[in-house]
Amino acid sequence: MENKYYLSHEEMPRFYYNIMADMPNKPLPPLHPGTREPITPDLLEPLFPKDLILQEVSAERFIEIPKEVRDIYALWRPSPLFRARALEKHLDTPARIFYKYEGVSPAGSHKPNTAVAQAFYNKISGVKRIVTETGAGQWGTALAYGCQLFGLECEVYMVRVSYDQKPYRKVMMNTFGGKVYPSPSDRTEFGKKVLGEDPGSSGSLGIAISEAIERAASDPEAHYALGSVLNHVLLHQTIIGQEAILQMEKAGHMPDLVVAPFGGGSNFAGIAFPFLHLNFTKGQNIRCIAVEPTSCPKLTQGKFMYDFGDTAGMTPLLPMYTLGHDFMPSAIHAGGLRYHGAGVLVSQLLKDNLIEAVAQNQERCFAAGLDFIKTEGIIPAPEATHAIATVIDEAIRCREEGTAKNILFNLCGHGYFDMGAYEDYMDGKLTDAVPEKQVMEDSIRSLEMLQPK
Amino acid sequence: MENKYYLSHEEMPRFYYNIMADMPNKPLPPLHPGTREPITPDLLEPLFPKDLILQEVSAERFIEIPKEVRDIYALWRPSPLFRARALEKHLDTPARIFYKYEGVSPAGSHKPNTAVAQAFYNKISGVKRIVTETGAGQWGTALAYGCQLFGLECEVYMVRVSYDQKPYRKVMMNTFGGKVYPSPSDRTEFGKKVLGEDPGSSGSLGIAISEAIERAASDPEAHYALGSVLNHVLLHQTIIGQEAILQMEKAGHMPDLVVAPFGGGSNFAGIAFPFLHLNFTKGQNIRCIAVEPTSCPKLTQGKFMYDFGDTAGMTPLLPMYTLGHDFMPSAIHAGGLRYHGAGVLVSQLLKDNLIEAVAQNQERCFAAGLDFIKTEGIIPAPEATHAIATVIDEAIRCREEGTAKNILFNLCGHGYFDMGAYEDYMDGKLTDAVPEKQVMEDSIRSLEMLQPK
Repeated sequence: MENKYYLSHEEMPRFYYNIMADMPNKPLPPLHPGTREPITPDLLEPLFPKDLILQEVSAERFIEIPKEVRDIYALWRPSPLFRARALEKHLDTPARIFYKYEGVSPAGSHKPNTAVAQAFYNKISGVKRIVTETGAGQWGTALAYGCQLFGLECEVYMVRVSYDQKPYRKVMMNTFGGKVYPSPSDRTEFGKKVLGEDPGSSGSLGIAISEAIERAASDPEAHYALGSVLNHVLLHQTIIGQEAILQMEKAGHMPDLVVAPFGGGSNFAGIAFPFLHLNFTKGQNIRCIAVEPTSCPKLTQGKFMYDFGDTAGMTPLLPMYTLGHDFMPSAIHAGGLRYHGAGVLVSQLLKDNLIEAVAQNQERCFAAGLDFIKTEGIIPAPEATHAIATVIDEAIRCREEGTAKNILFNLCGHGYFDMGAYEDYMDGKLTDAVPEKQVMEDSIRSLEMLQPK
Repeated sequence: MENKYYLSHEEMPRFYYNIMADMPNKPLPPLHPGTREPITPDLLEPLFPKDLILQEVSAERFIEIPKEVRDIYALWRPSPLFRARALEKHLDTPARIFYKYEGVSPAGSHKPNTAVAQAFYNKISGVKRIVTETGAGQWGTALAYGCQLFGLECEVYMVRVSYDQKPYRKVMMNTFGGKVYPSPSDRTEFGKKVLGEDPGSSGSLGIAISEAIERAASDPEAHYALGSVLNHVLLHQTIIGQEAILQMEKAGHMPDLVVAPFGGGSNFAGIAFPFLHLNFTKGQNIRCIAVEPTSCPKLTQGKFMYDFGDTAGMTPLLPMYTLGHDFMPSAIHAGGLRYHGAGVLVSQLLKDNLIEAVAQNQERCFAAGLDFIKTEGIIPAPEATHAIATVIDEAIRCREEGTAKNILFNLCGHGYFDMGAYEDYMDGKLTDAVPEKQVMEDSIRSLEMLQPK
């Protein structure tokens, strides 16, 4: 019985899918933090190349993938799609469970899909280096990889807690030629400020973003790059879902449910947006579920408001589900999900009830991860275990209700650099600090002064 | 341009290939260490299940793979074959370079091919647990994985130097339910003896084998398992080369050269034996090259003699290329290649000039590994870098001679648990102690008293 679905090089999608074209309600515009007026694209030019700014605001439905980028994708793409027959059997479920495996990429996750594209557009724009932040290290690894392919330098600010938890991620970035600094660092004014207030700060994505933007903005030969949240980043990831549609067709089953972990949105958007396209244009009714950690629950407990993308308040104000840019998530191992806000496109879709969101706690996720390891034999990244926990919930519901649903999830990366986390889980040492309601409310209330009049 | 060659589930080989049937000179028999007479299969029964003992001595050309084993192989097999176009371009070579990637397996290497088969045959034999040793950890991980699938316990003695170099390998074995002890340990008489003489011993595969055999022999509910060297182990790996033949046919290029790392022989045999079958039966002339480390050069500097498979002298005497069972290789990172002897089948083939052997030093191998990372984007296990170094040598020769050879190698595993080794290399900290000629000669000379009269 076949359980692996491959595509040939010729079947690899040649266009990114831009969901902006199909959204019934377009997202609200980003605002200038000073004037609270919609920003103009030229304001982003110190940080991003023109091509990416155009993609950020484009309403074109399909945007061509440059040949130079497709040639590199071909090293690992199309990525395989698996049917999780062993997990189905273990759960004794009538559900059919499929997963798209992005861990086959050089960085071990879906992140190179956008890293390679961003490096390409930056290269042709003429800059010499790219500065970025990274949480768990997947994004930093991906960008270091993309940069060295195009002869660009890469400077990475890695959230301190992940830097300490996953020392070999740094080495991996080094093998791709990247330079890595723990954040908060003393290389930026903002980093020094944070360290001044809390010398033992474990950092956050918001802080690391501020540091990377500060560095890029003060270096005329550098641009900044973000691994999630922004429209163009989500756009590049849609190659995942487009491939998955072809593969599910080969498998003879279209999904009833599409599940993905949620940090800033690129993981979820990558697999879900092309299926939402089927909902929008083919009258299908595929449920798309974003899974966030209970320790950082912006989708299920945050509020839809204008907020900064970073902690220092250097970015434009974005309309999104957020816990507030000052919110400090606890140091869970799924570093890629420790972000206070949600991308603009995904936030609008959630507001319009076109997608769903659930939260899972860390312990439950690692238990689900171990179930997956013991059946499917692949060690999932802690981020990916969030999707797995929800898939298992849904598969058990199928068993109880006697319905044979088709469930697809994004196995966004492997966990070979996260064995310390699995060790902690097996030793009973994992904690999962769910934020107090008051802390979230205070953090969100502080945003009121930022809203447009 | 296609650079990935997949096979469907239906194309997965259903038989192992047993090279014994085709060898012009059959290997000499194993000897009883006391009598120096050929051993009878029943002597092995305390350690191995009957099915595996039968495979060990079988002369049948094709041996069916049990359905239960094929069903598990289907999780990751057939494994992909890649054309290394980016590496070719980097080397500016007319050679076509292909690699069979075994790193997609649950353990991250080729080892589950035999681990799953061995666990299955042990399960139906009625034992409750399997004891084994592991060097770099690939084999121990594979056996832990295989055991948990069939509800067997797994006890692993891991060579101390690798245990310390790769802490997360232990955790990975734990996730599969395996129990792991650094060797030499105080859990066996032999381990205590070694520690008594050298409390800081970094261990070796030979010592760990002795410990595992001692444990298994003293436990009526346990069997022992070996991850390389023995005929049945090499047999199980031949699924690799059989798949590769089908994939090279799809690629439209049969190899002129097949290259693989060499520890005990299973990696090399796995990919090379099916191609030697073509040499034996179809008049082809495919060169098969085994690559060993200069720090443990039994093929290129050892001697073909009877020797023990372990350090304590618990195994039958095997006719093989060896540096002597007392030989202690330096603590290179390619732990899977730190073994004093070579499997019986491979030794006989080398003696008959039907295969070739070369040695590569550690620094050169890591340099080749980084070339591979920066072009193909996959981090190879240190063992695999030995093959890559030789492939690069041959590809450069092709460039100089202007010949477009087809080169295939076994990318036997990924190096995600070996980032410490890459860090040492990039920091200029790698040493590569090539053994002194006198040490090797003394160690080999001590074998003279073991030879049959």
